Amino acid sequence: MHRLEPPHRYLMGPGPSPVEGSVLAAQAKPIVGHLDPYFLKVMDDVSAGLRTVFQTANQMTFPASGTGSAGMEMAVHNLVEPGDVFVVGVNGVFGGRMAEVAKRAGAEVIAVDAPWGEAVSTDRLAETARRHHAKVVGVVHAETSTGVRQPIEELRPALGPEPLLLVDAVTSLGGIEIQVDEWGIDACYSGTQKCLSVPPGLAPVTFSDRAVHAVARRSEPVRSWYLDLNLLAAYWKDGSAARAYHHTAPISAIYGLHEGLRLVLAEGLESRWRRHSDTGRFLQDGLERLGFEMVAPAEHRLPQLTAARFPDGVDDAKARASLLHDHQIEIGGGLGPFAGSVWRVGMMGAGAKREHAIRLLQAIPAVIR
Amino acid sequence: MHRLEPPHRYLMGPGPSPVEGSVLAAQAKPIVGHLDPYFLKVMDDVSAGLRTVFQTANQMTFPASGTGSAGMEMAVHNLVEPGDVFVVGVNGVFGGRMAEVAKRAGAEVIAVDAPWGEAVSTDRLAETARRHHAKVVGVVHAETSTGVRQPIEELRPALGPEPLLLVDAVTSLGGIEIQVDEWGIDACYSGTQKCLSVPPGLAPVTFSDRAVHAVARRSEPVRSWYLDLNLLAAYWKDGSAARAYHHTAPISAIYGLHEGLRLVLAEGLESRWRRHSDTGRFLQDGLERLGFEMVAPAEHRLPQLTAARFPDGVDDAKARASLLHDHQIEIGGGLGPFAGSVWRVGMMGAGAKREHAIRLLQAIPAVIR
Repeated sequence: MHRLEPPHRYLMGPGPSPVEGSVLAAQAKPIVGHLDPYFLKVMDDVSAGLRTVFQTANQMTFPASGTGSAGMEMAVHNLVEPGDVFVVGVNGVFGGRMAEVAKRAGAEVIAVDAPWGEAVSTDRLAETARRHHAKVVGVVHAETSTGVRQPIEELRPALGPEPLLLVDAVTSLGGIEIQVDEWGIDACYSGTQKCLSVPPGLAPVTFSDRAVHAVARRSEPVRSWYLDLNLLAAYWKDGSAARAYHHTAPISAIYGLHEGLRLVLAEGLESRWRRHSDTGRFLQDGLERLGFEMVAPAEHRLPQLTAARFPDGVDDAKARASLLHDHQIEIGGGLGPFAGSVWRVGMMGAGAKREHAIRLLQAIPAVIR
Repeated sequence: MHRLEPPHRYLMGPGPSPVEGSVLAAQAKPIVGHLDPYFLKVMDDVSAGLRTVFQTANQMTFPASGTGSAGMEMAVHNLVEPGDVFVVGVNGVFGGRMAEVAKRAGAEVIAVDAPWGEAVSTDRLAETARRHHAKVVGVVHAETSTGVRQPIEELRPALGPEPLLLVDAVTSLGGIEIQVDEWGIDACYSGTQKCLSVPPGLAPVTFSDRAVHAVARRSEPVRSWYLDLNLLAAYWKDGSAARAYHHTAPISAIYGLHEGLRLVLAEGLESRWRRHSDTGRFLQDGLERLGFEMVAPAEHRLPQLTAARFPDGVDDAKARASLLHDHQIEIGGGLGPFAGSVWRVGMMGAGAKREHAIRLLQAIPAVIR
């Protein structure tokens, strides 16, 4: 086997996003045991940092030991038991994935669809949840396959107090405003490799006290032992003197997240949201000038992840290969119905800066010629 | 938040084990996308390296995106469907965990118990599997809670060709001999943080063609979407031109594993097994001279993980705290029935060297005084 010598890439795809040197360096710090007093302090810091980023006071806030999809699996499998009604908004790949995960958890899944590129109707979600006495309503805040922002802030008032509200914040956390407590969210999960700008591998999650109680009152055990909140609580309950071993935490990845959160908090959440918003608009204006057409309407368009139809006549695979090999720029292709007609460009975390957008906007004319 | 400054520890617990500088450095290399051609090559290398370490030609050999316990969950959830008979050897924490995971997968679980500190009887496993027409027989190769080695090599001849054989190699892989193909193992999982000496976070897994076919023929989908072999195969099938996105792979962790495997292969498997064997015996002799009593009988005793009863009158918590704070040495306490009477000492991976054993053997008299 050869020694690793990865090329430098400008990561402007749908994730992973670029990672600052200090975060990479944190992943190379000497490891300690997962029950070492030093590491328990690191865990407390990480939970506290995540609370700020999620805008929540939830005690149960921590990084699950898997990628964003493990976060989805954790949130869904803990909240639903076989037979529970789960209403889910589906307007892209990740809503569809949530529906699939919920089926495997045994839920009776009722999808509220919207065309790819549009937000799911808040009224239809609320009406469906009421009609079917939903236990849980699940929605995707930032649909990575379409660049659509779901207006989560409208949901709780429309739903009323009853159903548990589960939100996929994989591509939103740290990039656009999310207010877990103020918006009445009961379970929320994310990934590290998007707007937090930390390598993939961990899934920040947060559960409201109401959600924690619902999980504690389940009649059947959670189908996933690895992601069982009742078991993990004993390890992640912060400030706890006697943390109980559940599984060996991924020490180096948590070091990386620790440093990543330090950078997020040093910048400040509102500044960070503004930076993503400014860079996204700048990129989108530039793409439109090059003949691209935005998938999402302006009022529901994400700044950090842009899905855009490329001009007629572009050779999709060839153009993206040229971007990668000649310009060291990674962007993403379209998924599902958007394959072959849409590009996805991420300006996330450390990558959300005009010089990155300019680099891409300058390279595109050469590769689509 | 402060910047990370982890203390240096001599990691002699049941894991994580010490990590070489070049592995830590690999985790700090610039990240590329999970579909980048460079990364696909890294994946191929890692799969090839794992095949050597597992001693298998299995195509489906790769690191699952979670810790060793996720590997257990993956192996069990893929192989069993609701109602399937799963016979499991239980002689410590991890056999018990496998039984619990299998129950959550819907299996009819039949445990074949043995006292903690003994191996499970091969004859009883085989007889139970026959009587109940087991679909799967699961055993733990190296029981981390007791230091017992299960003689896996005896199992296939005793079981006959029928049942699928599932082996937990979390603490054995890279430390003692394991022969996945020769021993007729159908599914095997491990963790990176034991004898491979890579930080925790990934679960190397391997599935025989027979196991892959069994999973493909399931009548119900795997309860875990995240760990569904049918879906992951499209991403990890190596040499495949069109690898399909499933979830974002943990790039940095896989870099670390790549470098860790490079070191394992450079040393050579047999040299590595010999090093673990020599160091383990050296440590165990030394502990006996200090009045410790081995839990496992010599013929089933692991070299890499030693469970030993400490002498009467030792203050367990105080002695281990002193080892950690005064000597920077981490060891593990006893689990379950062994809590308060047993210590667990790992001499694993980069930590399997006499100078580490000597450091511990010299520190013990001071802390148990």
